[in-house]
Amino acid sequence: MTSDHDTPARPAGLPPYAIARQGRRARYDAASVHAILDAGLVAHVGFVADGRPMVIPMAYGRDGDTLFIHGATTTRIIRGVAEDVAEDVAKDVQVCLTVTLIDGIVAARSAFHHSVNYRSVVVHGAARHVTDPAEHDHALRVITEHLLPGRWDEVRPMLAKERKATGVLAVRIAAASAKIRTGGPVDDDADYALPVWAGVLPVTTAIGRPIDDGRVAEDTPPPPSLAAARRKFA
Amino acid sequence: MTSDHDTPARPAGLPPYAIARQGRRARYDAASVHAILDAGLVAHVGFVADGRPMVIPMAYGRDGDTLFIHGATTTRIIRGVAEDVAEDVAKDVQVCLTVTLIDGIVAARSAFHHSVNYRSVVVHGAARHVTDPAEHDHALRVITEHLLPGRWDEVRPMLAKERKATGVLAVRIAAASAKIRTGGPVDDDADYALPVWAGVLPVTTAIGRPIDDGRVAEDTPPPPSLAAARRKFA
Repeated sequence: MTSDHDTPARPAGLPPYAIARQGRRARYDAASVHAILDAGLVAHVGFVADGRPMVIPMAYGRDGDTLFIHGATTTRIIRGVAEDVAEDVAKDVQVCLTVTLIDGIVAARSAFHHSVNYRSVVVHGAARHVTDPAEHDHALRVITEHLLPGRWDEVRPMLAKERKATGVLAVRIAAASAKIRTGGPVDDDADYALPVWAGVLPVTTAIGRPIDDGRVAEDTPPPPSLAAARRKFA
Repeated sequence: MTSDHDTPARPAGLPPYAIARQGRRARYDAASVHAILDAGLVAHVGFVADGRPMVIPMAYGRDGDTLFIHGATTTRIIRGVAEDVAEDVAKDVQVCLTVTLIDGIVAARSAFHHSVNYRSVVVHGAARHVTDPAEHDHALRVITEHLLPGRWDEVRPMLAKERKATGVLAVRIAAASAKIRTGGPVDDDADYALPVWAGVLPVTTAIGRPIDDGRVAEDTPPPPSLAAARRKFA
């Protein structure tokens, strides 16, 4: 897993998925990018705070070319954006949102050719503080249903105080690249003669059977969202 | 999964694991931090490039309070550090290295209390370009054996040209915080009366049975590193 995932950031306003540099294993079409974003559990969101890099894991959801992320209003990224809001004029904050799925450990005949099978997407964009109530609700639905499809309508509706306590950022994808590595090791020709085992250790992520919290009424069946999540992330 | 993981970065030179802010669910002891770092498959490494945040997934390994990461010498982070090297005086580059393990999807009775069970570590430190040959070899061993314990001595030794092609960065941990969420949803008292299923969908990462690449001699048994990896990441 060498990281030639460093597509130069492109300014907002250009078409998403533009090819900045054709890296090894790189893909830039929307379908590849969206498929990986939709299959991820969490995103690693990077931003610059006081000139230093910060990367935090965050729940997220996608709606078209917009990603929504949320956090307690006290967190730095939300606070940083909110503090820049003056008279309803939101100042955007540049973020990098990366989603990675690990599929295998690739054992080669030399240390040099060891690798990791993975699918990853790096998104660059400006994070906008969501203040419109309808968009705020929509974003929270999208984030909730990313992990549990259909969950929003199964639960008690949001309260005003809960909305207020939940900061939401919208990131329109300004540039994105996907990278996918599959298959076995690629060894040097001469090394295939060595008596060294080589191949792949598959890595799988699985959703187990739901465990209720012990306070669910006996006649309450597991809702469709649980099965939907198990299908989605299988 | 709200992200109060935003421990303020601390300048290098202070003791690692210092408590900057006692966040919810936060832990700062070395044992908690090391355990999560050792259990992760990849790290998400953030740095600032041209004033913008960049987050890329990278293989890594830990030796005490030092993390090693590597990549093709053409990647931006390595290039950025290497270009600052003049007459063996390396200029360090600030990075944020985050490792996250997802353990469950937490379904609550309200959208607001939905969460994710996870273990994560955020490390801040300065990335130093490793130029000493012995340290370079040691770092590559540490990175290789993070995923496949014992693998280094099973494979063909590194060649000079391979060493040259592999940039290595050492990040001494200047500050680190761990966050762990476990258990079921924590709902509002009134919501427990609702006829809504609530609980946890476990998320597990598993290492499957090794698949050889079809070019392994028949009398070559799977080496101990494979079993060690399956034990380590079970």
